[in-house]
Amino acid sequence: MGKATALRSVATVSQWDDEADVVIVGFGGAGACAAIAAREAGADVLLLERAGGGGGTTALSTGQIYLGGGTAIQTKCGFTDSSEEMCKYLLAACGPGADEAKIRLFCDESVAHYEWLVAHGVPFKESYYGEGSYTPTDDCLSYSGSELAWPYRDLATPAPRGHTVQQDGIEAGGMLMRSLVGATERSGTRIQSDTLCETLVVDDNRTVVGVVARVDGAEACYRARGGVILAAGGFINNKEMVQRYAPLLRKCRFRAGCDGDDGRGIRMGMGAGAAAIRMDVGCIVLPFTVPKQLIKGIFVNRRGMRFIAEDLYQTVVGEAALLHQDGEVFLITDNEIFARPFPETEITGVEDSIEELERTLGFPPGSLQQTVATYNEHAANGEDPQFHKHPDNLTPLIHPPFAALNYSTDKALYTVFTLGGLHTRPSAEVLSADGDPIVGLYAAGRTTSGLAAQGYSSGLSIADATFFGRQAGRSAAARSQAR
Amino acid sequence: MGKATALRSVATVSQWDDEADVVIVGFGGAGACAAIAAREAGADVLLLERAGGGGGTTALSTGQIYLGGGTAIQTKCGFTDSSEEMCKYLLAACGPGADEAKIRLFCDESVAHYEWLVAHGVPFKESYYGEGSYTPTDDCLSYSGSELAWPYRDLATPAPRGHTVQQDGIEAGGMLMRSLVGATERSGTRIQSDTLCETLVVDDNRTVVGVVARVDGAEACYRARGGVILAAGGFINNKEMVQRYAPLLRKCRFRAGCDGDDGRGIRMGMGAGAAAIRMDVGCIVLPFTVPKQLIKGIFVNRRGMRFIAEDLYQTVVGEAALLHQDGEVFLITDNEIFARPFPETEITGVEDSIEELERTLGFPPGSLQQTVATYNEHAANGEDPQFHKHPDNLTPLIHPPFAALNYSTDKALYTVFTLGGLHTRPSAEVLSADGDPIVGLYAAGRTTSGLAAQGYSSGLSIADATFFGRQAGRSAAARSQAR
Repeated sequence: MGKATALRSVATVSQWDDEADVVIVGFGGAGACAAIAAREAGADVLLLERAGGGGGTTALSTGQIYLGGGTAIQTKCGFTDSSEEMCKYLLAACGPGADEAKIRLFCDESVAHYEWLVAHGVPFKESYYGEGSYTPTDDCLSYSGSELAWPYRDLATPAPRGHTVQQDGIEAGGMLMRSLVGATERSGTRIQSDTLCETLVVDDNRTVVGVVARVDGAEACYRARGGVILAAGGFINNKEMVQRYAPLLRKCRFRAGCDGDDGRGIRMGMGAGAAAIRMDVGCIVLPFTVPKQLIKGIFVNRRGMRFIAEDLYQTVVGEAALLHQDGEVFLITDNEIFARPFPETEITGVEDSIEELERTLGFPPGSLQQTVATYNEHAANGEDPQFHKHPDNLTPLIHPPFAALNYSTDKALYTVFTLGGLHTRPSAEVLSADGDPIVGLYAAGRTTSGLAAQGYSSGLSIADATFFGRQAGRSAAARSQAR
Repeated sequence: MGKATALRSVATVSQWDDEADVVIVGFGGAGACAAIAAREAGADVLLLERAGGGGGTTALSTGQIYLGGGTAIQTKCGFTDSSEEMCKYLLAACGPGADEAKIRLFCDESVAHYEWLVAHGVPFKESYYGEGSYTPTDDCLSYSGSELAWPYRDLATPAPRGHTVQQDGIEAGGMLMRSLVGATERSGTRIQSDTLCETLVVDDNRTVVGVVARVDGAEACYRARGGVILAAGGFINNKEMVQRYAPLLRKCRFRAGCDGDDGRGIRMGMGAGAAAIRMDVGCIVLPFTVPKQLIKGIFVNRRGMRFIAEDLYQTVVGEAALLHQDGEVFLITDNEIFARPFPETEITGVEDSIEELERTLGFPPGSLQQTVATYNEHAANGEDPQFHKHPDNLTPLIHPPFAALNYSTDKALYTVFTLGGLHTRPSAEVLSADGDPIVGLYAAGRTTSGLAAQGYSSGLSIADATFFGRQAGRSAAARSQAR
C-alpha cells in the first residue's frame, strides 16, 4: 500500500482514469452528505470508498445525532429548545479549546439540518426515550450529554438533543447509513467502491487537483476539478498513530471504529501540508449507567476518594477516570441500588461493611469509610456539596452488603475513538499550520477536529460528519463552479 | 513575513545566495551544538539566526541540564548513578508515551555528553546544591525531578541529575550560551545573524535542499548540500498555535520563551510534510517550593480535597493542578511551616482554625476539616497512606494560625513552555505522518517532541537541545559526505 504522505506532483500523472468536479474519499456519514450536498449544488461528483460499499464507522454507530434548537421532534415531545441554549451548552461542555465558529454555525443551522436529513429519507420517530446514549427501542429523543448535570444545568436550559434514527436495537447507525446510501444513489453521485485512495495529487502551486488510488492492485488517478473532500474517518485503528499522538487512549479495550479508521485521510492531508490538531483528544466512554440506578453509587479512585459527580455524562466520567485517575476507579453501591451492570464488569468486592470493602480493595485505612460517611451525611439531606450530583440521584449508601464494581481500564469496557484530525474552517476548507487554506482540499467527520474538543456528548460525531460533510460538499462544488 | 508552510520548489529559486553542507536554522542551545557537531564531522556549516546573535531560549533559562549515569561531578559529590537507573527513572517519569529509543540513547551517552560539553568550555563547579530546579548560587548538582518522591524512589535508585552551569544567580543559561557561542565560533561555523528563515526549499523528490530567508527586507536563499537542521525553538509565544493545540496552557501567566518561540520551525517542517506530535504537552511549572519547608503543607482543590503528594516535582504538581484541577488549588500551612513564598502569591486566608479557613475559602462544609484531620492523624506517625509523601516532609498541621496560599492560575506564577513538536528519530531525522524520514531535514530542541512526554524534570529541555542537537549535526554531516 502506498504511503499516504507520498504527495504526488501532477507532472507524474500520465493519465487520469476519471474526473469530476468533486472527488470524495470515503463513504461513511460525512462522505455521503458531502456527495448529496455537492450534487444539490450542481456539481458532478465521484465518491471513492475503500470497502465494498457505503457505511464506514457511521454504520457501526448507535445512529444518534446531536441536534437541537427546536427540532420538530423536540417540539412534539414537549421540549423547548433554542439555538442559543444549545450553543451555551456546547461552548461550556466542549471546551476549553472548543471551535466556537463551528459550534455557532452548527447551532444556528441545526433545525434546518434535521429537516434536511428527514427530507433525504432518514427516519426519526416522534418520541422521547429518556436519558442515556443508547435507545434500545426505536425511539428518538434522549439526553445524550451532561445537560442535566451540574454546572451545565445552571449554564443552559437543558433539553434532550440526542436524535436517534428510528430502528429497534442499539445499532441504528446501520439504518442511518442505509438511508444516506440510498439518498446518495438517488442524487446521481457516481459511486465507486473497492477503491483505496492512497495519496493526493497537487499542481505546481500546491493546489490539490486529484487523488491516486489503488483499484484491483493497480494505480488509478482521479482528477478533481473543484476539490477533493477527505471523509475517511479517524485513526483509532492505527496503533502507531494512537501511541504517537494520544498514548493514554491505548488503555481502552474497545475501539469504536471500522477498519478504515487507520488515519489515512488525516495523513493524506498532512502530506499536503495540512495541520492536524487536537490529536490527543478522544471520546472515552465508560459505560456504567445501565441500569440507570447505578449512578446513585459513588465513584472512587484507588485512594478511596470521589473525583466526579456520577451523573455527568459517561464520556465525561470516562475522560476523568482515564486521564486523571490512571484508569483505576470503582463504583461503590449498597444493596438497594445494586444491579448487574450492562455491559458487565468485575465485581471486586461484596462485603457487609464499608470497612471490610475498603480492606478488600486495598484502599488506605479509613479512606473509603470517610468518603462514604461524608457522602451519606449530605445525601440524606439531598445534597452533594462537593460534586453537586442532582438530588434525584442521591441516596445514602446504608444497606449492606456493599459492592465495588471495578471500572478500571483492564476490567471494564472503556470505549474509545479519536476526536483529533485535520484543522478545518466551518466551511470545511482544510488549513495549513499557518492557518491558510490548502487550496482544493476539504474535509469532514472524524478526519477532522470538529465540534468537541473535550467533554464529548453523544451524537456529536455524526453531527460533525453529516453537517460538516454538507459544508464540504457545498464548498467544493462552489469552487468548481467559480473556476 | 512569508508563510512558514509556503514550501518552495527549487525551480523557483533563481540563485543561491550561499550554500553549505549543513544549514542550521536557529542559534540557541540546539543550533549551537548541531553546528559544533557537524563541524567535528568535517562538514561546512552555515548557521542562520533571526535575532542579532546567539542565545535563544537557552540563554534565558536556568542553565540546568539533566545528565547522569555517573558524571564526574556526581561521583565527586559522592552520588552513585548508572545509565540503567537513570533510564528507569526517565521511562517511568516521562510516560506514558515517552520516546523509549530517545531515552535509552540519551542515558547510554549521558556521561560522554557531559564530557563533550566540558571539553567545549561549558563550566560546571564540582559541588552539590540540594533539591529544586533553581540553584541561586554557582553550585552545580541538584535533584531537579521527582527522583526522591513516590513511586519513583522505589522504581529507580535516586540521584541528583540536574547539572547547572557555573554562574551566580538563577540565570546560568546566559553563561551556558556564552560558552556554546564561543565554541561555535571556534568551530569554524559560518554564523549569520539577523536572518529570519521563512520556509524550506524542496526538489522534485520532496527532498529538502535549502531554506528561504529574509535579510534586510530582501529574500535570500541558502542551499544545503547535506541537510537543513531546524533548531528554532517551540511555540509558546504563538497564541494561535497554543489555542489550537494546547488550549489549557494559555491559562499560565508566565511564558518561558524568547520571541523566536513562535513555532515557525515547527510550521516550516509541517509545510514540508513533517508530523508534529504531542502538541498538547507543556512543561507546567508551579513554583511553590521556595522556601522548601512549604512542601510540608498540603495542596487541596476547591473541594477541600488533596490530589497529589506535595513533594513530587513542581512540574508534576503544576501539571496535575492545571490539567486535572482546573488550575484552582490552595496550599494549606500552619504557623510552624509557613513562610513567604518565592515567587509571591496571594494569601487568601489566615485563620485561627481550619474550620474558619474552610469557610473563608468557600469550601464545602467539613471538607477541609476532614482532609486536615486525616492528614494529621497519619502524619503524626510519619505516614501518608493516600499519597505517600516522604516522611521527612510530613508534619501535622496543628499550630494556628492556618494559612491558604492561593496557587490558582490567576494568582500564582504558573510558568509554561511547549514540549510538542516535530516527530524525530533519535538520529534527529524528521519524520512524516507515515513515519518515514523527510529526506534532508533534521531537527532538535523544542522544535521537536523530545525526551519528556509528561511529568517533566528540569534540565530535560537543554538536554534535548544539546544532545539531540549534536545528533542532528552528525546526521546531516554524514548525509552530506555520503552524497
